Amino acid sequence: MSNNTSKCDIGFVGLGVMGKNLVLNLADNGYKIAAFDLDSEKVAAAIQQDVLETNNQAPRVIGCSSYTELLSKLKAPHLIVLSVPAGEIVDQVCQNLIGAGIQPDDIVIDTGNSLWTDTVKRESVYKDNFIFFSSAVSGGEVGARFGPALMPSGSEYAWTRVKPIWSAIAAKVDAVTGKPIERTEPGQIIEEGEPCADYIGPAGSGHYVKMVHNGIEYADMQMICEAYHVLREGLQYSCDEIADIFSQWNEGVLDSYLMGISVEVLRHKDPETGSHLVDLILDKAGQKGTGLWTAVSSLEVGCPAPTISQAVYARSISSFKELRQQTSKTLSAPQVERFTEEKKLEMVTQLHDALYCAKICAYAQGFQLMKLASVEQNWNLNFASIAKIWRSGCIIRAAFLQSITDAFERDYKLENLLLDSFFSEQLSQYQQNWRFAVAKATMMGIPIGAISSSLSYYDSMRCDVLPANLLQGQRDYFGAHTFKRIDKPVTQKFHVHWTEPGRPIKQV
Amino acid sequence: MSNNTSKCDIGFVGLGVMGKNLVLNLADNGYKIAAFDLDSEKVAAAIQQDVLETNNQAPRVIGCSSYTELLSKLKAPHLIVLSVPAGEIVDQVCQNLIGAGIQPDDIVIDTGNSLWTDTVKRESVYKDNFIFFSSAVSGGEVGARFGPALMPSGSEYAWTRVKPIWSAIAAKVDAVTGKPIERTEPGQIIEEGEPCADYIGPAGSGHYVKMVHNGIEYADMQMICEAYHVLREGLQYSCDEIADIFSQWNEGVLDSYLMGISVEVLRHKDPETGSHLVDLILDKAGQKGTGLWTAVSSLEVGCPAPTISQAVYARSISSFKELRQQTSKTLSAPQVERFTEEKKLEMVTQLHDALYCAKICAYAQGFQLMKLASVEQNWNLNFASIAKIWRSGCIIRAAFLQSITDAFERDYKLENLLLDSFFSEQLSQYQQNWRFAVAKATMMGIPIGAISSSLSYYDSMRCDVLPANLLQGQRDYFGAHTFKRIDKPVTQKFHVHWTEPGRPIKQV
Repeated sequence: MSNNTSKCDIGFVGLGVMGKNLVLNLADNGYKIAAFDLDSEKVAAAIQQDVLETNNQAPRVIGCSSYTELLSKLKAPHLIVLSVPAGEIVDQVCQNLIGAGIQPDDIVIDTGNSLWTDTVKRESVYKDNFIFFSSAVSGGEVGARFGPALMPSGSEYAWTRVKPIWSAIAAKVDAVTGKPIERTEPGQIIEEGEPCADYIGPAGSGHYVKMVHNGIEYADMQMICEAYHVLREGLQYSCDEIADIFSQWNEGVLDSYLMGISVEVLRHKDPETGSHLVDLILDKAGQKGTGLWTAVSSLEVGCPAPTISQAVYARSISSFKELRQQTSKTLSAPQVERFTEEKKLEMVTQLHDALYCAKICAYAQGFQLMKLASVEQNWNLNFASIAKIWRSGCIIRAAFLQSITDAFERDYKLENLLLDSFFSEQLSQYQQNWRFAVAKATMMGIPIGAISSSLSYYDSMRCDVLPANLLQGQRDYFGAHTFKRIDKPVTQKFHVHWTEPGRPIKQV
Repeated sequence: MSNNTSKCDIGFVGLGVMGKNLVLNLADNGYKIAAFDLDSEKVAAAIQQDVLETNNQAPRVIGCSSYTELLSKLKAPHLIVLSVPAGEIVDQVCQNLIGAGIQPDDIVIDTGNSLWTDTVKRESVYKDNFIFFSSAVSGGEVGARFGPALMPSGSEYAWTRVKPIWSAIAAKVDAVTGKPIERTEPGQIIEEGEPCADYIGPAGSGHYVKMVHNGIEYADMQMICEAYHVLREGLQYSCDEIADIFSQWNEGVLDSYLMGISVEVLRHKDPETGSHLVDLILDKAGQKGTGLWTAVSSLEVGCPAPTISQAVYARSISSFKELRQQTSKTLSAPQVERFTEEKKLEMVTQLHDALYCAKICAYAQGFQLMKLASVEQNWNLNFASIAKIWRSGCIIRAAFLQSITDAFERDYKLENLLLDSFFSEQLSQYQQNWRFAVAKATMMGIPIGAISSSLSYYDSMRCDVLPANLLQGQRDYFGAHTFKRIDKPVTQKFHVHWTEPGRPIKQV
């Protein structure tokens, strides 16, 4: 596709962990890259890695020391990929590219974790200078190198130019089984299978979908941690025993990347002390904002997403370590009886079913959120396609995503996963064990906010009549907010003079 | 303070439900009002009400038909109170006042439910034209008329001029007992007691505090509704029986305005059908945004507020009535045994204790949120003063607020109510019953997301070691996000090559 002397196919700005690996992935797939980073050492490191991987064959990555040089090394019309931190830096790079003479039919693809509303603005701001396209990337370092999940959005014309490249570098799944096709070696290319890359929709929609992916990821991670907490503190299992349990769970409906890496983290020994490393890690969780954005968006859109919010709050709570150390001495814990071996095994099964059901509800929340946002923004998102993209490459990849794909292929207008026949059957089958797990953890004093908020969600969403009737009565009492009646047309509103019993209730 | 021919003390713009009642409250307290509304019928209605209440004595409210007339009727420097809908209208009124010749030492007080960041902007935008001051008001229609809780913020100079007026019209509490002093009749004035009005802090802080008040209000209301739901659906009590139970609860630690009005709502009969009205109210809850803003702010500030968010989500879920009607037919409910009378009574007590503990946690969340915001914004909020203001007049007024006042008077720097000796003792005493209530409702399939998320909050906040260690391991595995260790200085960060067991772990 290119040779040593010809111009490069793709310009690349930003050679951090994600950028360098995306560059090598592109190179493996036959694209010649002109690479630039303000930090010239990063450019040198990428070139060195390329030389190492290709045994000093024809170089696939050409270093540049300025934006002007970058553009000069590229075939026209130019295609430039950005892998720089979200925020102002994206705009600085865009301005520099304008200064260096970028042309209106050139394409710039932002692959960072940008806030989706920034992407919407940028498409419009730069439209006279170049085509601002965006593509969210999930999969971390390894995904970037050997096949990430890609969520491109923006100009449809730009997508026709980007599509072959994105299809090449993306993770792939077997078209029949939906299972990931492994790619683990430098130089390896996977040409068969369905790529985990598909056009999402208008500008911003790809980053929105990626944001919700991360919100679900927060929930997934937190629920695994809660199960671990119950197993460790409640049932007194060792790290290795929990790794064994998780490993077994990873063979069934809970088969997922996050479950798999949890097993490895739990087994990992600290070479220095010989202890399990997980026991030495400080329990203060970091966060970079995408989970928070998802929770905020769910509140603003009016979509219930309690499990995702709980996961975000769990990270906040973890950060108040000193406060927790103080309260742990003064706030009472419940008295807990030691479980028999038989009772422990029973609870392990219940916990498994709880995790599965809670996971279905977290995904139901995430997909309904995307659905409501899609309606609000006129994005016309294709949820079967999104579920397909997430089957491999990304952090929440799991066998489970095939079931979600199937659900949306059965009914592409599906309002909520809880309405799908497969998921409603699964939830109905396992809900009793879910309840046992939540009730027992509650009595043990082990916090399982994400798993239990999923259950409240389930019980609320299947509730024909919620107690919001009393709430509407309260609101009308103190604020004259009015209410509707079940025995009158829904177009009519009523207000009561509550302190005057017997006074006729009039429509307002 | 004024006579028929002299100029007015206060200009008033906006004579809706809140405005009219605030005007009459001001008039009762001896202030002569010049009143304006774009809707002249509202002006006429306010004047008519004033004439009625004073038996045609000297008029206390003078109608105006323009902003210019309004200013001309006022003593200088002018003091103008706005009671108009939050949002753009506030700015339209400000522009009109500028057009009518308002002066730099005039004061405009915004009493609407404005978003606090808008208030911050407005103080700065209008600073050359007049002093933009703000004062959030809580208490609904009746509070506005006979004594609201007032949360003023902005220019300290403006407060010296507003303070006597605000102190006069605010709700009052007995300085010794902390109990509200009743005021229910037109013309009645309460001169003794502590007014529920105190300077909150710099511009925006008053509206922020009011926003959090409303977030707590959402949680309070939702938790009462959840208790009602368990009593009604789980324990099969009638509306009147639940009213009796709530009425009894309203005599003890749960004594609150919202509990009191819930009793009245539950007892209210529909004159038309003879049924309990609450059974005829449609279970779709409305919302106006302040609860949502509180939840969003908690996420942004990094303050755990799961109970408040759950309350907001509960309203969202209620709005999906049609979806709920569908899922109620397909998603399984648990099998529930009927409780004996003795078991029912036992659960009523457990539910009472659950509501009390969950309420403490909801307030702990709200106060910690204000604390974190205060630090972030340099507001230097006085939380004992805020709790005092909320003891009467506002929607969340309750005996309980005196205990919060006491806690902050014991330690004005208190980071979280859970650290206070009184509340930690109360929670420790009742936590076991709280667990029973949550576990039983869980097994019954009655959703109690707010009450149970409070319990997860309690159990997380008292947790010396949370499972965030595993989460940090996961994050480092897929994203190289690094972690800290409990056996190393907290300044050091580490990254592991997880797929290479035995490889030394290096500081990064």
